[in-house]
Amino acid sequence: MSLPRTPRIAYGGDYNPEQWPREVWAEDHRAFDLARIDTLTVGVFAWALTQPDADTYDLSVLEEVVERAHAEGRQVCLATGTGALPPWLATEHPEVNRTDFQGRVHGYGQRHNACPSSTVYRRAAAALAGRVAERFGDHPAVVAWHVNNEYGGFDGGCWCERCGADFRAWLRERYGDLATLNHAWSTTFWSHRFTDWDQIAPPNMLTEHWRGPDHTAFQGITLDYRRFQSDAMLRTFREEKDAIRAFSDKPVTTNFMGMFRPLDYHRWAPHLDFASWDNYPPDDRSASRMALTHDLMRGLKDGQPFWLMEQTPSTTASRDVNPVKRPGVLRLWTWQAVAHGADAALFFQMRQSRGACEKYHGAVLGHSGRTGTRLFREVAALGAELERLGDRLLGARTPARVAVLFDWDSWWAVEMSDGPNRHVSYPGTQVAWHRALWEAGAQVDVVPVTADLDRYDVVVAPLLHLLEGDIADRLAAVAARGGTVVTGVLSGRVDEADNAFLADVPGPLGAMAGVRVDETDAQPPDVANPVTLTDPSAPGDTVTCAGRLVFDLVLPQGAEVVGTYGSDFYAGTAAVTRNRHGAGEVWYVGTLLDADGTAWVLRRVLDRHGLLGPFADAPGLEHAVREVGGRRYELLLHHGDEAVEVRAHVDATDLLTGREVRAGDALALAPTDVLVLEVGR
Amino acid sequence: MSLPRTPRIAYGGDYNPEQWPREVWAEDHRAFDLARIDTLTVGVFAWALTQPDADTYDLSVLEEVVERAHAEGRQVCLATGTGALPPWLATEHPEVNRTDFQGRVHGYGQRHNACPSSTVYRRAAAALAGRVAERFGDHPAVVAWHVNNEYGGFDGGCWCERCGADFRAWLRERYGDLATLNHAWSTTFWSHRFTDWDQIAPPNMLTEHWRGPDHTAFQGITLDYRRFQSDAMLRTFREEKDAIRAFSDKPVTTNFMGMFRPLDYHRWAPHLDFASWDNYPPDDRSASRMALTHDLMRGLKDGQPFWLMEQTPSTTASRDVNPVKRPGVLRLWTWQAVAHGADAALFFQMRQSRGACEKYHGAVLGHSGRTGTRLFREVAALGAELERLGDRLLGARTPARVAVLFDWDSWWAVEMSDGPNRHVSYPGTQVAWHRALWEAGAQVDVVPVTADLDRYDVVVAPLLHLLEGDIADRLAAVAARGGTVVTGVLSGRVDEADNAFLADVPGPLGAMAGVRVDETDAQPPDVANPVTLTDPSAPGDTVTCAGRLVFDLVLPQGAEVVGTYGSDFYAGTAAVTRNRHGAGEVWYVGTLLDADGTAWVLRRVLDRHGLLGPFADAPGLEHAVREVGGRRYELLLHHGDEAVEVRAHVDATDLLTGREVRAGDALALAPTDVLVLEVGR
Amino acid sequence: MSLPRTPRIAYGGDYNPEQWPREVWAEDHRAFDLARIDTLTVGVFAWALTQPDADTYDLSVLEEVVERAHAEGRQVCLATGTGALPPWLATEHPEVNRTDFQGRVHGYGQRHNACPSSTVYRRAAAALAGRVAERFGDHPAVVAWHVNNEYGGFDGGCWCERCGADFRAWLRERYGDLATLNHAWSTTFWSHRFTDWDQIAPPNMLTEHWRGPDHTAFQGITLDYRRFQSDAMLRTFREEKDAIRAFSDKPVTTNFMGMFRPLDYHRWAPHLDFASWDNYPPDDRSASRMALTHDLMRGLKDGQPFWLMEQTPSTTASRDVNPVKRPGVLRLWTWQAVAHGADAALFFQMRQSRGACEKYHGAVLGHSGRTGTRLFREVAALGAELERLGDRLLGARTPARVAVLFDWDSWWAVEMSDGPNRHVSYPGTQVAWHRALWEAGAQVDVVPVTADLDRYDVVVAPLLHLLEGDIADRLAAVAARGGTVVTGVLSGRVDEADNAFLADVPGPLGAMAGVRVDETDAQPPDVANPVTLTDPSAPGDTVTCAGRLVFDLVLPQGAEVVGTYGSDFYAGTAAVTRNRHGAGEVWYVGTLLDADGTAWVLRRVLDRHGLLGPFADAPGLEHAVREVGGRRYELLLHHGDEAVEVRAHVDATDLLTGREVRAGDALALAPTDVLVLEVGR
Repeated sequence: MSLPRTPRIAYGGDYNPEQWPREVWAEDHRAFDLARIDTLTVGVFAWALTQPDADTYDLSVLEEVVERAHAEGRQVCLATGTGALPPWLATEHPEVNRTDFQGRVHGYGQRHNACPSSTVYRRAAAALAGRVAERFGDHPAVVAWHVNNEYGGFDGGCWCERCGADFRAWLRERYGDLATLNHAWSTTFWSHRFTDWDQIAPPNMLTEHWRGPDHTAFQGITLDYRRFQSDAMLRTFREEKDAIRAFSDKPVTTNFMGMFRPLDYHRWAPHLDFASWDNYPPDDRSASRMALTHDLMRGLKDGQPFWLMEQTPSTTASRDVNPVKRPGVLRLWTWQAVAHGADAALFFQMRQSRGACEKYHGAVLGHSGRTGTRLFREVAALGAELERLGDRLLGARTPARVAVLFDWDSWWAVEMSDGPNRHVSYPGTQVAWHRALWEAGAQVDVVPVTADLDRYDVVVAPLLHLLEGDIADRLAAVAARGGTVVTGVLSGRVDEADNAFLADVPGPLGAMAGVRVDETDAQPPDVANPVTLTDPSAPGDTVTCAGRLVFDLVLPQGAEVVGTYGSDFYAGTAAVTRNRHGAGEVWYVGTLLDADGTAWVLRRVLDRHGLLGPFADAPGLEHAVREVGGRRYELLLHHGDEAVEVRAHVDATDLLTGREVRAGDALALAPTDVLVLEVGR
Repeated sequence: MSLPRTPRIAYGGDYNPEQWPREVWAEDHRAFDLARIDTLTVGVFAWALTQPDADTYDLSVLEEVVERAHAEGRQVCLATGTGALPPWLATEHPEVNRTDFQGRVHGYGQRHNACPSSTVYRRAAAALAGRVAERFGDHPAVVAWHVNNEYGGFDGGCWCERCGADFRAWLRERYGDLATLNHAWSTTFWSHRFTDWDQIAPPNMLTEHWRGPDHTAFQGITLDYRRFQSDAMLRTFREEKDAIRAFSDKPVTTNFMGMFRPLDYHRWAPHLDFASWDNYPPDDRSASRMALTHDLMRGLKDGQPFWLMEQTPSTTASRDVNPVKRPGVLRLWTWQAVAHGADAALFFQMRQSRGACEKYHGAVLGHSGRTGTRLFREVAALGAELERLGDRLLGARTPARVAVLFDWDSWWAVEMSDGPNRHVSYPGTQVAWHRALWEAGAQVDVVPVTADLDRYDVVVAPLLHLLEGDIADRLAAVAARGGTVVTGVLSGRVDEADNAFLADVPGPLGAMAGVRVDETDAQPPDVANPVTLTDPSAPGDTVTCAGRLVFDLVLPQGAEVVGTYGSDFYAGTAAVTRNRHGAGEVWYVGTLLDADGTAWVLRRVLDRHGLLGPFADAPGLEHAVREVGGRRYELLLHHGDEAVEVRAHVDATDLLTGREVRAGDALALAPTDVLVLEVGR
Repeated sequence: MSLPRTPRIAYGGDYNPEQWPREVWAEDHRAFDLARIDTLTVGVFAWALTQPDADTYDLSVLEEVVERAHAEGRQVCLATGTGALPPWLATEHPEVNRTDFQGRVHGYGQRHNACPSSTVYRRAAAALAGRVAERFGDHPAVVAWHVNNEYGGFDGGCWCERCGADFRAWLRERYGDLATLNHAWSTTFWSHRFTDWDQIAPPNMLTEHWRGPDHTAFQGITLDYRRFQSDAMLRTFREEKDAIRAFSDKPVTTNFMGMFRPLDYHRWAPHLDFASWDNYPPDDRSASRMALTHDLMRGLKDGQPFWLMEQTPSTTASRDVNPVKRPGVLRLWTWQAVAHGADAALFFQMRQSRGACEKYHGAVLGHSGRTGTRLFREVAALGAELERLGDRLLGARTPARVAVLFDWDSWWAVEMSDGPNRHVSYPGTQVAWHRALWEAGAQVDVVPVTADLDRYDVVVAPLLHLLEGDIADRLAAVAARGGTVVTGVLSGRVDEADNAFLADVPGPLGAMAGVRVDETDAQPPDVANPVTLTDPSAPGDTVTCAGRLVFDLVLPQGAEVVGTYGSDFYAGTAAVTRNRHGAGEVWYVGTLLDADGTAWVLRRVLDRHGLLGPFADAPGLEHAVREVGGRRYELLLHHGDEAVEVRAHVDATDLLTGREVRAGDALALAPTDVLVLEVGR
């Protein structure tokens, strides 16, 4: 692993001066100085410029931009520029164009428009990456490499004949022979037994699917195709990275998109030097969702800091409705990113596009180039704060004792499952569980199922539908050594090929959970079943909340009943259980509980391990901890609509104001307020 | 006509042991014994297994399954296995793959994936059917043949070039020459006069359609294409049946899907030996809808019993939300099927699929194979009841004096009509009218317009939009001889080519109804027009209900006014009329009445003929009558949420409990309760 | 410019007797006499009849129809009949079939089915037009030519290879070289720099678009393609017109469709001799929308009267719900058309189609041919009224002092813009502003941005997103000479290539408006921000209304604040301003106000110029003025649900009743009532 070397949290963003006349460049750099912007991402969509035809590379404009940045004292995150094809390549070699899920061969247009299996595309992209690396590999301004851009955009892939051929090769590699493949895909069902590899085609709307990408006749085929497409795109990344490595050993990344379904970032992560991602939350009520996503991105490289590669300083453009960021929000969210592991805070973009579909996407400088705007003032004030921080939080780590398992295979499997309920959302459920932990002030890692679980007291596994490898054993081990495992409905259902375990539900998780489930009911989103939760060891501690969508009729096989349903024919039967396993406990939550119920369960779990945060009862107040070089930083971020007052729990210095805080002092936080406490200073 | 010979109501279902290792088979049969399962449907999707390549047939696994069933004393409903193509056929002969309504040529995948006009497919399917019949035609375990599976699934057909050619041949047969065709299709409109047969192509989204299958520029073309596709699939059924007949004279069926729009089951029915169907109601509030559908299926073979070929013992999987069946519901619905004519009660399926899209579809045995589940206990209890019944209800008939006309041509025509209102649903209207009869306790046949109407006192014709043959005359004859005919809005509008009658509305029905309609208003679903219904001969008998969607401004031409509109510019004018015709009456209901209005009208009609049932006022209590061999059975099925108490109307024995009942006795029925009364025993 | 010569307001409509046997024709003409019908539109879809194959023209039926009309004393609007292809042409030359926006090549079917770039189609259409004109050019019955029909129906065009080639030619003409094109299209963005003309393809779902026609990666490309398609269809119109001109100098039109997005009618208008359009409002609450559309159509030919080419006498058929026209509505709407400039009132159609998709579309004569219907009586009564009017209103003009700018480029640009808010509707906003003027009784012209603005006191420019030519200067001149200009949010944003002005918002409109906008907030449709409007010179004159969807944070640069926001972080800041500019005023309305707010602003504006109408406070009462030959006509049309009583404002004669009216007399108008006052007679 390696991170770019920067003197402080990198600040700046995407910069495409090639769209503007030279006289604007000087104006840009003057504004960057005002805002303490020290980092520019350059060349993301420059292919048509850097390679105007098959035989010509022209890096002169890129050179000019990089040299100017260098001269102005700024560092550069340099893109290979392969995020969108140039027209000449697409028209001279139509094979580079993708075929969509409907089976339609696309012509030139848009971005994310390349077939990852096209050798013409792959060679051209790697060649360009090599040329750029050859020229700028040693350039002192370049601190990091940015390969391609937001891989997998739109519907995430290609379904062409070439991909079909590569898919078959991938399958041969995975299964060896057709008998194994037929068994894995359960092809006896619906007369699908394949007798020749060439009978296998990409699963799309013209073959196995109906209604859309989540409705397939053969989950196993579609699941493998998702894996294959993720791998096929990863291959193109790796080819570009290899081309760079021939000339440069600076750290390489590509910008991820958080909870992005098409790509299994956990399989990508080992091939990146550091993670980076683009934070475009759906709305300004997304604080907990962003917290989860930052944790997920930090978890890609085992806790190593990531770069926030993109966020908008103000509005998006591609949504149906694109509101401006309210005052203070840009600052609050940027500090939240830092609180969760960001070593860079970059914008898309520095100057607003003149034309095309992003001309109304917010930018540090608008079409007028004016620096007297509210937006620019907020950007500049934030730049000053970050500068004041110096190198203090760089490279810090989050001391988490709680892990949430996030698993792309389970995501894919549970959302493409026919039955029991199409309304179940994997990320929505992740957000619900993570939010309860976050509100309780727990420091949380979001990790793959392959992660080392030894370091955690609590492991939460929502919708762990598909079990791969030894994850069941390792979860049992967490409980056995005294930890707590929380799992529940729709977990432990299928193996890695999406075939049901031929056993009682929840399969390999059943023994540790001490339960059996013969029936899972399903109801539409507007139907709630009241669930009464009562701690058997503290009967006064009770709450009634709502369960929704899916309802396991839990049959305790040793577990104690903590929650019971309140209605339907299974009223009075078990909904939530807790089982002693070794020195620890395993909870089984048999329905999707609302926020109150989820909080009730998880606070009991955290409490057992002394992991409730100091501000768990202050609504909207986030508490995040970072440690580096023996020092501890605690960030307080207020996402609520109402001012809160809390008592400081440690002696510390607020790095943003220099104010000294003593434990017990009153701390008043207005909405969007941020404290960056250096503990014990 | 002929029915499979079985000693009692056949009980069991789809069984696909080829998906499982042999050791599971023994476990299966032990469970079947526990549940008194005596019938297994075998081989429905076995093509890839039974014919692994073009030149090889391998019936060994099928043989093993059938022999084992036989050895265990079970009977077999044997499938030809052509419901889904094997991969080798689809890839070696791409012509077998269907082209969808969007004009997209499909590749291999899914099921229902064959073009019915492909000669390669037709020959291969018939050949396989022949091979299977040759081998098992005399097998003592085989009691019935099951051809293909759920013909016409998905969007019901194929729109390829080959179908285009067959369509043209079909049209030549129907019309003889282009002048006749042009006249039938009204091609002077929009410059469509065809001057060569080859100018005619399948009507789809690339030719005559917009928005979807119900929006066409030329209703006549699309109507004929629907007829052609139904016939084309029927041809493939007949070819398989003929291949079977060469080796076996056991009864042949294919499983229908109830009110399934793509296929005109009335045109299919003569070619089946017995009808069978798959009952997957949309929800657990569908009791009256199922009653209608059973009656429709029974009407296919002139009242002969049918087989319930599939129902789920618990959940479906393909819906957005798939709830479990509540306790008692499986039993209640199975008895309802028997009450309406089922001689078999079969499940899909016996053991739950391990993988693919039906792995969460309910089954008698789940993934664990456990028999201690609530579901298995209910299945076994029901099996015991059916066994207790013996052969008593086999071959029974429903003594109906009421007929409802159900007509695929009218369904197609009224739902593809531009104007007056796209929200009108043919099956929805059928359900509304049938429900009123069912609640009133009438025994009802649901029959085609070609049925012999002489046996009925009452004939109800909802949305009889298209009039074919002499149906108008035969309806008039019903009234002339003293019967009652009920029809109304959107009836009598078009001839068999979907051309408007050049006459006053309702065309040939006008004289008997004694009305004329110059205008039909339409309103969105949320607009109701109050309709006040008053019996002119009993003015105190009045109710105000709601009319919706379509509103004929009825101008009486001799009829008496029974109902008037309450709002809009036609407030006070006629909505519902009754006309004396010969010795009988013809009602014209000029709008879609709500449940209260429909009940008011139909109870008056039933009352005239003394056809109100004994429990017409007990909410949710169904009363069904079956007669065989001189004995009469009356089934009471309680679909309501609340317990009811009624008085027995006859002396009888409840065959399920052995309890003797005297007329006048109190009968208490809790929700889901069932009584099977043998009268006078 | 020229209008057909008719003795009075032409009355009649589409007549397709070729669909009927000859004996019906006599019946038709007897009915036409009863209804005073003097004008028949003939041959609109006759291509398959008039040219049964490539080498044969057969005008005999057309001849028969025209001769019969002539013999009966009726005049004919003669169609070229090219609105739908005949089957033989489409199958012999598949290139004539269009390719849709999805990139799918269509087969034969529907109408609007020709590719406008197909030379085969273009030659065949022009040849047919020439043949018809050659035969009937001098026929005394023919008063006007009707080319094709409703150009651009459905999704408005073709995206085939041939269109691609013609698009490239059109672009070469527009831009000269690729550098200019690349600059206009901002192709540096997303690596789109084109290096060869042949790299450019039609922008559709397989190239630049996502989600649909309004979602494009490159607005500039799609904008130009819309212009090109409009021009390509216009070319086919001109070719037919030229072919007619070789034989006839009678006035030529084609029937437009009002606010129809695909075609820029302003670019078409110079090529028509007179405008005509088909009025199918969405519902019976569309009085103000129809007023706007009539004004827009009248504005096409600089105020010259237009023909109302189609309206339904009763129901439509293609809607989901097709209600009948309420009593009086047909008369009211016909007089409204006349009030806004119609010199003809024509129906689609005279006799109801027997089959196909318009068989339930209303017609003067229904399927029964009956003249005793309510509908026919209303048609006949209206015919009598129009006859009574004689030539009085023919050729009249509307003396408007208020102009609303309507601009197809702005419509296209604002609705395909990514950001700020996809819910903004261009026609919806036009209707909102025009409605306020119409309710206030102002006489309004709706004109293109190229119109001479010197004649207006008030110019309203809603959503003038794209500024072309010198429109900003000419608006400034209106204010400078003492007039009032009203504009606002989303105006002045982009140049003619849809590139943002590199300046403060609202670009070239900023100086005259005296404002600057750094931020535009956006909110979903259900969020309102209260806006308080107060006249600074009359502080008691205040109202609080709602702003929606988009919210400019208006920074006054000299303008006075008239309205302020009431909520969100910009509460208290400017939403609406008024600026002194020369002798006049410029209003800037920074959000989409509700009806109350819009009325408040515009009534203040009208009041400044003395342009409030005499019945501005009578709800639902429309007041329209027409002048011709020195005489003035004032029409009062009551669209409200409640009767109103007003005082006459002039001495006049009601031409419909002959009643003399004195100024000050009470005038009572029931719903749907109409007065046609000849002033001072």
